[in-house]
Amino acid sequence: MRYKLVIEYDGTPFCGWQKQQGQQTVQEILEKAISVATRQKNIELSGSGRTDTGVHALAQVAHFDCDKKLDLYKFRESLNALVRPHPISIREIASVSDDFHARFGAKQRSYLYKIQNTRYPPALNVNRVWWYTYPLDENKMQQAANLLIGKHDLSTFRAAGCQAKSPLKTIDEISIKRDGDFITLEIKAKSFLYHQVRNIVGSLVYVGSGKWSINDFKSAFEARDRTKGGETAPAAGLYFSGVLY
Amino acid sequence: MRYKLVIEYDGTPFCGWQKQQGQQTVQEILEKAISVATRQKNIELSGSGRTDTGVHALAQVAHFDCDKKLDLYKFRESLNALVRPHPISIREIASVSDDFHARFGAKQRSYLYKIQNTRYPPALNVNRVWWYTYPLDENKMQQAANLLIGKHDLSTFRAAGCQAKSPLKTIDEISIKRDGDFITLEIKAKSFLYHQVRNIVGSLVYVGSGKWSINDFKSAFEARDRTKGGETAPAAGLYFSGVLY
Repeated sequence: MRYKLVIEYDGTPFCGWQKQQGQQTVQEILEKAISVATRQKNIELSGSGRTDTGVHALAQVAHFDCDKKLDLYKFRESLNALVRPHPISIREIASVSDDFHARFGAKQRSYLYKIQNTRYPPALNVNRVWWYTYPLDENKMQQAANLLIGKHDLSTFRAAGCQAKSPLKTIDEISIKRDGDFITLEIKAKSFLYHQVRNIVGSLVYVGSGKWSINDFKSAFEARDRTKGGETAPAAGLYFSGVLY
Repeated sequence: MRYKLVIEYDGTPFCGWQKQQGQQTVQEILEKAISVATRQKNIELSGSGRTDTGVHALAQVAHFDCDKKLDLYKFRESLNALVRPHPISIREIASVSDDFHARFGAKQRSYLYKIQNTRYPPALNVNRVWWYTYPLDENKMQQAANLLIGKHDLSTFRAAGCQAKSPLKTIDEISIKRDGDFITLEIKAKSFLYHQVRNIVGSLVYVGSGKWSINDFKSAFEARDRTKGGETAPAAGLYFSGVLY
């Protein structure tokens, strides 16, 4: 029996999603809880994608196999009790067919990136946003972002250590919206390079703050060279927000 | 010289706003920081209202007097640096006339109350919402809330220890809105009884969950008796959101 989970977490206290020896990770905490709840050893949980230290998830998706038929409602309640006090929550659990794969079956992944654009620092949103003090023009950021839609060589936004074979990626959609002091960027693509969203955001704020023109952004993007791009935006503003299958 | 501050804080780590011997409070942390920044002893900061342990503020207002003419921009930067790492942020500082009084001059105060209405627990919103698992009908809650608009005896929603002389209060506005899994109540009034908002919310969820009819709510309200009201909603969902002068 294969089961699909939809998971929310606050990334702040974790060394990311992926299991690592001696580190507190979301995957490991969940695998242990599932083992206890199912009374089955060696549970392996496959996530739709990794998230880095400090990156949050509104709707990470993962699957695992289990010999038993689970009562979905009760199982979710048990898991949510077992992961306490960690800030991890199982939003949904569903029974899926054996050919469902959280990672390989994903058709589109979404991320949100949140910026608090104020001179004063965040209090309620500490660890939830990038605090950016210079005024940002979200319309210029959107214009620059529009250049990235479609299939492109994204080497300028690819971090060292990226394991993808090719720097070619197709971005389906980027929308940038302001709500008062907060700017939210939403980006959708089948898959992403390592640090791609944070590196794109880091370059877009150069445009938003006036440090770069839209042409400067275009040149940096077309240079296919990470050293020509903007800084890497902080992990705290990034939310893995959903997967389509 | 009198100065007005607009302050945001995460109420979680504090024993509320009001100074208390041996406790960590927002008022005391701010008074110490202002003393350092102004190099003036015995700074007294008057808030527009107290908040309890765990209650947040988006826009608490307070004033203090100081002998010096302050550079407002620099002073805000200094204060925000001095209060770190506490989750307190000075959003605004303004020079005001000597007859401005944060508490006595307030014409209207606003609060928000946030409910996460999901079967699964909050992860990103731990300490920021009331987690309420039974489905709530926000339209019925609004209908019940409408009964409270105007001047009424609010004894049913008045906690023990309230220092107000009279249980008569005028509520200007209550609006209850759902955005997906989240319900936000906004309430506006010149002043409030002790625990009034949390006690009103605790009774409104009885209506929203179907435990009470709107008539049950009306009877409880008209009984003018705290023991007839619903439970006190948790502090974590409450935000002091603004003051009009």
